[in-house]
Amino acid sequence: MPSIKPPLSAMATPDDTEQQFYEALQTGDFARLMAVWSDDEAVVCVHPGGPRNVGLDDVRSSFEKVLSRGPIDIHPEKIHRLAHQDTAIHSVLERVPVTTDKGPATAWMWATNVYVKTAQGWKMVLHHSSPGLMGQAAPPADIGNTLH
Amino acid sequence: MPSIKPPLSAMATPDDTEQQFYEALQTGDFARLMAVWSDDEAVVCVHPGGPRNVGLDDVRSSFEKVLSRGPIDIHPEKIHRLAHQDTAIHSVLERVPVTTDKGPATAWMWATNVYVKTAQGWKMVLHHSSPGLMGQAAPPADIGNTLH
Repeated sequence: MPSIKPPLSAMATPDDTEQQFYEALQTGDFARLMAVWSDDEAVVCVHPGGPRNVGLDDVRSSFEKVLSRGPIDIHPEKIHRLAHQDTAIHSVLERVPVTTDKGPATAWMWATNVYVKTAQGWKMVLHHSSPGLMGQAAPPADIGNTLH
Repeated sequence: MPSIKPPLSAMATPDDTEQQFYEALQTGDFARLMAVWSDDEAVVCVHPGGPRNVGLDDVRSSFEKVLSRGPIDIHPEKIHRLAHQDTAIHSVLERVPVTTDKGPATAWMWATNVYVKTAQGWKMVLHHSSPGLMGQAAPPADIGNTLH
């Protein structure tokens, strides 16, 4: 049986781990998605407009539901990075092309992703995604982004 | 002129700093609110359904707007704590009593607050607040909270 965990080198940096997280959502690869998460009962996940999932079992259940509807065409953009020792905090604009009654449109979300360095590489401990500016066709304004 | 910064002892722990943050919102104390933030150009703040504010100047401007409408009767509940070295990540249920056409109601938000330990005590570097489960009168379900 193939290992469900990617090689450690694949999560050598927070950016590596973040890339795996979004690629796993894009390809609907549940095992790869869960391998991104820290094996820590304190992990937290909030999907847009949803409840808070605390602990690995409930995070797993929440993503089973999400992926039961198929892969998600989600694209991380405008990644803003904060780092302190072995903790990385990323603020990400998530872009999801959607189809509406009026034709193609784009859903925008703001996500906060937190990673910590472990013996198994950088692992996700928190994912909090929420709707961007309501009813906006263009990307939500990123106040202050000219500084970065 | 009195100092606008509280004594260091007031931010000796992440919980102290979080308490000051919510008390400053409750009392409309802008100086106290800004004293909670790290003096770091990478700080990030997302208000519910709003844009992303990056950098201390834009975080300050966003809270000027928020408090220009007066103090906010906001109450942190169900605080879930993650910690890694000198970084603390809190997931908080924010409760805000509101008045609607149909009478008193409650707005619920999920917030992610991140604090880092600095020479000036524990300081906020990220605040991301978003609407809880839509149209729900009771507190949003906290999946897995029986574990914690």
